[in-house]
This record gives sequence, C-alpha cells and structure tokens, in this order.
Amino acid sequence: MTAESYAELERRFARMSKVGGALGMLHWDQSVIMPAGGAEARGEQLATLRLIAHEMQTDPAVGDLLAAAEAADRLDPWQAANLRLMRRRYDHATAVPGRLVEALSRAVTRCETVWRTARADSDFPTLLPHLREVLDLTREAAVAKGERLGLAPYDALLDEFDPGRPAARIDAVFADLESWLPDLLSRILDRQGPPPLPTEGRFPVAAQRALGERMMRTLGFDFDRGRLDVSLHPFSGGVPDDSRITTRYDEDDYASALMGVLHETGHALYEQGLPKEWRYQPVGQDGGMAVHESQSLIVEMQACRSREFAGFVAPLLREAFGVDGEAWTPDNLYRANIRVAPGFIRVDADEVTYPAHIILRYRLEQALIGGSLDLADLPEAWGEGMETLLGIRPPDDRRGCLQDIHWPDGAWGYFPSYTLGAMGAAQLFEAAQAAHPGLREAIGRGDFAPLVGWLREHVHARASFDGSADALLEHATGRPLDPASFRRHLERRYLG
Amino acid sequence: MTAESYAELERRFARMSKVGGALGMLHWDQSVIMPAGGAEARGEQLATLRLIAHEMQTDPAVGDLLAAAEAADRLDPWQAANLRLMRRRYDHATAVPGRLVEALSRAVTRCETVWRTARADSDFPTLLPHLREVLDLTREAAVAKGERLGLAPYDALLDEFDPGRPAARIDAVFADLESWLPDLLSRILDRQGPPPLPTEGRFPVAAQRALGERMMRTLGFDFDRGRLDVSLHPFSGGVPDDSRITTRYDEDDYASALMGVLHETGHALYEQGLPKEWRYQPVGQDGGMAVHESQSLIVEMQACRSREFAGFVAPLLREAFGVDGEAWTPDNLYRANIRVAPGFIRVDADEVTYPAHIILRYRLEQALIGGSLDLADLPEAWGEGMETLLGIRPPDDRRGCLQDIHWPDGAWGYFPSYTLGAMGAAQLFEAAQAAHPGLREAIGRGDFAPLVGWLREHVHARASFDGSADALLEHATGRPLDPASFRRHLERRYLG
Repeated sequence: MTAESYAELERRFARMSKVGGALGMLHWDQSVIMPAGGAEARGEQLATLRLIAHEMQTDPAVGDLLAAAEAADRLDPWQAANLRLMRRRYDHATAVPGRLVEALSRAVTRCETVWRTARADSDFPTLLPHLREVLDLTREAAVAKGERLGLAPYDALLDEFDPGRPAARIDAVFADLESWLPDLLSRILDRQGPPPLPTEGRFPVAAQRALGERMMRTLGFDFDRGRLDVSLHPFSGGVPDDSRITTRYDEDDYASALMGVLHETGHALYEQGLPKEWRYQPVGQDGGMAVHESQSLIVEMQACRSREFAGFVAPLLREAFGVDGEAWTPDNLYRANIRVAPGFIRVDADEVTYPAHIILRYRLEQALIGGSLDLADLPEAWGEGMETLLGIRPPDDRRGCLQDIHWPDGAWGYFPSYTLGAMGAAQLFEAAQAAHPGLREAIGRGDFAPLVGWLREHVHARASFDGSADALLEHATGRPLDPASFRRHLERRYLG
Repeated sequence: MTAESYAELERRFARMSKVGGALGMLHWDQSVIMPAGGAEARGEQLATLRLIAHEMQTDPAVGDLLAAAEAADRLDPWQAANLRLMRRRYDHATAVPGRLVEALSRAVTRCETVWRTARADSDFPTLLPHLREVLDLTREAAVAKGERLGLAPYDALLDEFDPGRPAARIDAVFADLESWLPDLLSRILDRQGPPPLPTEGRFPVAAQRALGERMMRTLGFDFDRGRLDVSLHPFSGGVPDDSRITTRYDEDDYASALMGVLHETGHALYEQGLPKEWRYQPVGQDGGMAVHESQSLIVEMQACRSREFAGFVAPLLREAFGVDGEAWTPDNLYRANIRVAPGFIRVDADEVTYPAHIILRYRLEQALIGGSLDLADLPEAWGEGMETLLGIRPPDDRRGCLQDIHWPDGAWGYFPSYTLGAMGAAQLFEAAQAAHPGLREAIGRGDFAPLVGWLREHVHARASFDGSADALLEHATGRPLDPASFRRHLERRYLG
C-alpha cells in the first residue's frame, strides 16, 4: 500500500499546486489589470482559494498517507525528496491551530493597512499596538511550528522562507561578513572617484519597454511562456510555464526599470527552467527565497552590473534613446551601476551596503521574536544599529523601522534571504566562470548562454531536490555558502 | 435547525460562487492575456477548480441541508427563491453520474478539436463519429436530468440555459413567429431600397477603442468595475464588480467592433446591475441565457440600431475617424445598420432573418435528441430546413451544419435563447418606452438614463428572483413573452 500512498500524495499535492497556480494568476491580475472596484470580489476569490488549499494541505488523510508512504522503501531519490518536502509542508501547515492561522491573517490585514498610513506619516506609535499583535501571534505560531519541527521558534520561521538554514548557520555567515565588510566599505568609499556623469534625458515608455523585452530575450526569457507588464510594485509572479514579471517606468530615469527588469528576469528564468517532469510536485518547485534571490541577483548584480555588460549595453542605450556623449560610454555607465553610498533605505542600497541593512533587520527580528527586545524600543534600537553598521542614523521612522512591509505583513524570518541570496549569487557566478572561462567575455558580446546554460543545469533543473540552499550550493559549487566568494567579488569589482 | 441549514447553504453556495468567479477571471485571462505556452498549466488550473466546484456542489451534505431548509417556513421571498435555485443546481449537478460527466467532458474536448479542422475543411464525415459520441452522451445525461427534474429529456437540457421554459412553450412562441415572419421578410425585401453607401475608410485601432469606451461610458458602463480588451472571439466575462468585455478591431471596418462593443456592454450592464446584497448567492445571479441575451440585444438592436442612435452617433464617427460625406449621414448609417439580407451564417445574420437560423437549429437538435433524426442525415436536413425557412441552400457544410461550435461543445438546448432574447428585448423596450415616453428622443441625445435606469429597476435588480424569463417579463411588462412586441418592432422599423 505504500507505493499507492505515495501516488495518492502526488495526486493531492498536484491539486494543491494547481490551486496555488490559480492564486498566482489572480494575484498577478490584481496587481496589474484589475479595476479598483473589483478589489472586494477579488479578495473573496483569493481568500476562498487559500482556504481550500489550506484545507487540502491539512486534511488528516494527508497525515495518514505520509505515514504510510514513509514506510516505503522503493522510492527513487527524487520521489524520496518529494516525500520529505510533502512532510515539511504538512508539518508547517498543521502545526499551527486553525484559530491562530485565522487570527494572524486578520491581524496582518489590519496591520498592513495601518502601516501604509503610519509610514507616510512617520508615526510609529500608531502602528505599535497593531504590530505588537502581529508579533505576538507570530511568536505563538513560531513556538507551535518549532515544537512540531524540532526547531527553535525563530528557526521555524526562517525555515518557511529558506528551508534547512537555522539561525546558528546564518550567525556564522553574518559574523564572517561583519569581520571584513565594514573595513572593505570604508576602503571602497575612500577609493571611489568622483560621481559618474548623470545619464540624463527623456526616456519614452515605449522605448524602455522595447529595450527591456530585448534584454529579456537576450537573457533567454521565453515569451511564449511569460510576459512583461507594469505594476506599482515590480514583482515576478505567475507559474513556470506562464512567468509574468512587472516593472514601473520613469521617463526621467531609464536605469530603474532596466535594472528592475533584469532582476525580475533572473527570477523568471529560474521558474521557466524548473523541471517539467516534476511540474506540480513540491520537489519541482523553487528551493526557497534565498535560492530565488540568488537567481535574480546573479543576473542583475553579477552579470548586468559588470564592466562587460556595460560595454554590451552602451550602444543599445544610445540607439534606443537617441542619446550620446561622455555619460553614455561603457566606463561611465559601469561606474553609475556600481556607485556605493550608505543610505537609509534598503531597497535603494547598493550591493556593498545592502548586507548592513539585512544584518540589522535579522538581529532585530531575532531579538523581538526571542523577547529580548521590546517592540516599543524598536525605533531606538534601529537608529543605534544603523549608526553602528553604517555610521548614519535615520532622522525619522519613515526612513527607519517603518520602511519595510515585511513585519506588518507577517513575513518574519524573510530578510536574511536577500543577503544570503546575494552571497550565493557570487559563489555560483564563480563556479560558472570556472566551468566556462570565457563567460565574462561572452556577456560582453550579449551572449548569456554560458551563464544561463550553467544555471539551467546546476540550479534550475534541480528545483527543490537538494532540500536546502547549502546542499544545492554544495552540489553546484563543491561547498556550502561561503562568504569568501562574495568578498572576492566585491574586492575585484570595487578595489580591483 | 432549518434556519441554520439555510444559513449553512448560503455559506456553501457563496464559496462555490467565489470559485466560479476565480474560474471566470482565469478564463478571461486565457482568452485575452495568456501566452500560448501557458495553455497546459491553465487547463490544469481550470480543470482543478471546476472539479472542486463540482465536488462542493454535489456534496451529499448539501442534499441533507436542502431537505432541512425546505422544511423551514420563515424564509423571506428572496431567501425562498434562493433556496429553490439552490435545489435546482443541486438536482442538475447530482442527476448525472460522475462517470458520465467525465465521459462527456472528454468527448466534448475531442469533438471540439476535430470540429475546428472539420469546419475549415467542410468535412462532416470526419466529425460525425465524434459528434455522435457527444450526442449520445448528452442524450444519456438529458434522460438522467429529466428523470430527476420531472422533465422530458430535451426540456432538461433547455432548463440549464433558460430555466423554466420547456419546449412546449418555445414551440408555441416559434409557431407564432413562423406564422407571420416569412411574409414580413418578403415584404421587407421588396420594400428595401438600394444598398446604403459604403462607409469606407481607415479606422485606426486607437480611435476605435476610444470611441468604444466613450459609448460604454455613455451607456453607463462603470469602468471602475470593468474593462474593455481585445480577444479573438468577443465575449463578456468576469464577475459583476469586475465585468470584462472584449472586442476585435478591423481597421477597414469600424462597425463590427462598435456594434460588438455595444452588444457586450448590454451584457455587462446587466452584470454590473445585479443586486449587491445577493452578490454570491444563486438568486443574485443572472436569470439565464435568454434574459442575458435580451440585455445585450436591447442595447444593440433596440437602442443602437435605431434611427435616433444613428443621429446621435453620426457626428461622433465623423469626429473620431475624420470622415465626411453622404455615407456618414444619419440616414445612410441607419440604413447600413438595418440592412436585411438572407445568408448562410447565423452570426452574420440581421435581426429579421436571425430567427430562421434559430428555428432551424431548435427543430434539428430536438429531433436529434429525441431520436427522430439520425445524425448522419443532418447535412441533408439542414439544407432542406434552410431552403424552407430562408429559400437558400448552403453549398457546403462549412456554411451549413458545421458553422457553430455549440453542438461539438456540448451546448445542446442553448440556441433558442438567442431568439427568445431578441423577442424579450423588443418587449422590454416597449415597456420602458411606455414608462418613459421620451425614451427614443433621449437616445437621440445620447442619454441612455431612461432606458438603462428602467432596466436597472425592472430587470437587473431582480436577478434570478423571478425564477424564469417568462415570470421576469410578466413582472416587468405585465405579460410573459409575447411575439407581438417583436412583430411590432420589426414592422415599425422596416415597414414603418
């Protein structure tokens, strides 16, 4: 009966995955297409499908099937990995009692609404009680998940976003980073020359879109299985065979949309490269947020902010926008793309100062979940942390602890993925280059096949098979996440 | 417990309705936005949600709840109507055994695929075995539904599309129509003058879209709760608070898109006007295909092919497309909009010859379901019927029995709704005019408020409350469907 149990689990998880795909498309539509008056009906559709998916996921029959299938001994390695991921999802979903899931969902909806106004008004006290409610419920859920999964509460939260990488491992990685990054930053700031010439002009939306689509094709994005559209907050969504990325155009600045499109294309290439034969199974899906971010950042940061890419893209920019002159030389474009400047806002940060923003949030959320920091003291702790890490202190909470949606949105444990992804990207790029010594020169010719082909084989095609980002990196590069690659990347690019 | 049973039914049907809304949006996306490579994944999403909805609808607990709720005596009239509609849906869904639902679904998918090629090749013999399979399974389902609902098999099929109007009622209406329409048609053809001047020109898509949106606003379409887009086959979809209509632009012909947009706007106005307080309940949804078609045709045929509308729209066309001259006078536009010419193709037919196309299909499908006509003899019977009804015989099956998707698609019993809707539109327009004597003149000024306001109150706001199109018409106009209104309309317009 165990083989039959596993087969039945595959059927059930495929069904959940298809409901998940429907949710993804409806969410895309909500962000890109939907008229405002449709919001309430859409909210009802999304809530209903989420509830249906949750009921399917927490059905006690799934627990019985898992127990039966786990007694099987004839599963091949991918099936076995799939079964482990099914177990993980079931444990995550059933660990938290239904009333807590509901309470958290309601608290998050309220808190997010209050946050939008509170951020605009730089008004932390108004947010405080709502965020405290979210934090308390999140802690309660973290404890319940931790008990089920045999993890500390904060580790259980981390595991949702980046499976199999506990805080102890992140502590070690971040400690390494902190041992050399502040010094490296100050050397970079000292050596950094005068600002690049401004790339000014008027950049019509149509020309920006055409250029973005051209770059997506150049990277290997399959427009038969995806789209580029516009939304207020750029994102990558949809499903692997219908990957939809969005951007936002500013006619006074070509770079924000272009860099955003390149970033989201990295996400979409990962989705489009997931293995077809495991399409609707947990093992066929992405390996978590840190891996996903490594794929967007290897395209944006490693490949497309390189000197070689600047050489490739400069004539295309001149042609697309009818611009010319010193500002549009490869060298000036390159310098503009790698300018370092400490600032208050995470999403505007360069790759050298970005880790400081993440380390701050990681330490703070760990302390908040653990109870060693009271939420009322967050603004003060934030200011001190920024002072210590980057030597600047935000003048208000809008530019401080109110800037991100993650905590009001209930996404505690998410932040580390950004920097772990950036470091993973550096490590994967090194390995790809070792396999293809002419990889940088190819990028300079607009040939991404060596890089993307390598990623297809060593990252995309493996999906969730390896079970954790560290195991995936070990398979692809011979070692788990190693900050030395990121350090070499920064030294080469900024001090080389 | 009965009040609680009814409340639980409302919760369950609301959930089904929201899944149905999600399906509607995903179907819209499939027709308008989706890249070709997403088809398989979308098919899986749609099939999964349809299966979930079907399981919710056929859950035996719903049967128990219905029995309990039907014993209640404290339901208000709308609740009671809602409960009757819930019963109707449950009976329709549970009458047909699961294996038959599945077999029919598979047969329809195959048959529709074969039909696309067979129609292009005018090759009925290739379609025959596939269409026979669909017909046989449809008949089997019709018998099962008929037994459950206490209806003859064909009446059970009709009931799916146009609740509460059996074949005997349609026979009477169509017999009335046939007693005067052929003579009226020949008088119209005799009296019809020379063809109108051709409205030639180049009509850019952007100008057509702007004009279409302007007309939609003029009619009262709420763009905060809907959209206009492009698709290969124009349709009206989405949900009441997010009503999405589509059209197709031909830059050599402004009229096809404009008339199509006006038609679909009629459908969308109905959806947008459904009562908010019954949003997710059966009683809050449209009253069936005949009522829906009456709403598109009252806008397109009654209002927008009128002489008054031609007077209103003529200057807008001249302005939108920079055209001028005799062809663009109100009189010539009016004559172009009401030109009568017997032809082979239903979807191209004018309102005078359209009923002949429907009567033919109605008689034939009745005979096919009843078994008095063998499917192999369909082409011959079609040719004879066209000869008798319109005096023309199609030279091939492509322009004959292969032209419509409905039968290959499993939509047996759908066709009568078109003509019953056209007749209902005439009757409703008469009643609206009686209530607002200046209604035609208002249309001539581009003021649709008298017409649409009347429809909002007497049709849209009643949704499915009346239980049948005849009951709705009786409420709105004082009598059930009466062909005399349609006759007066045609005589006035074409012989007046």
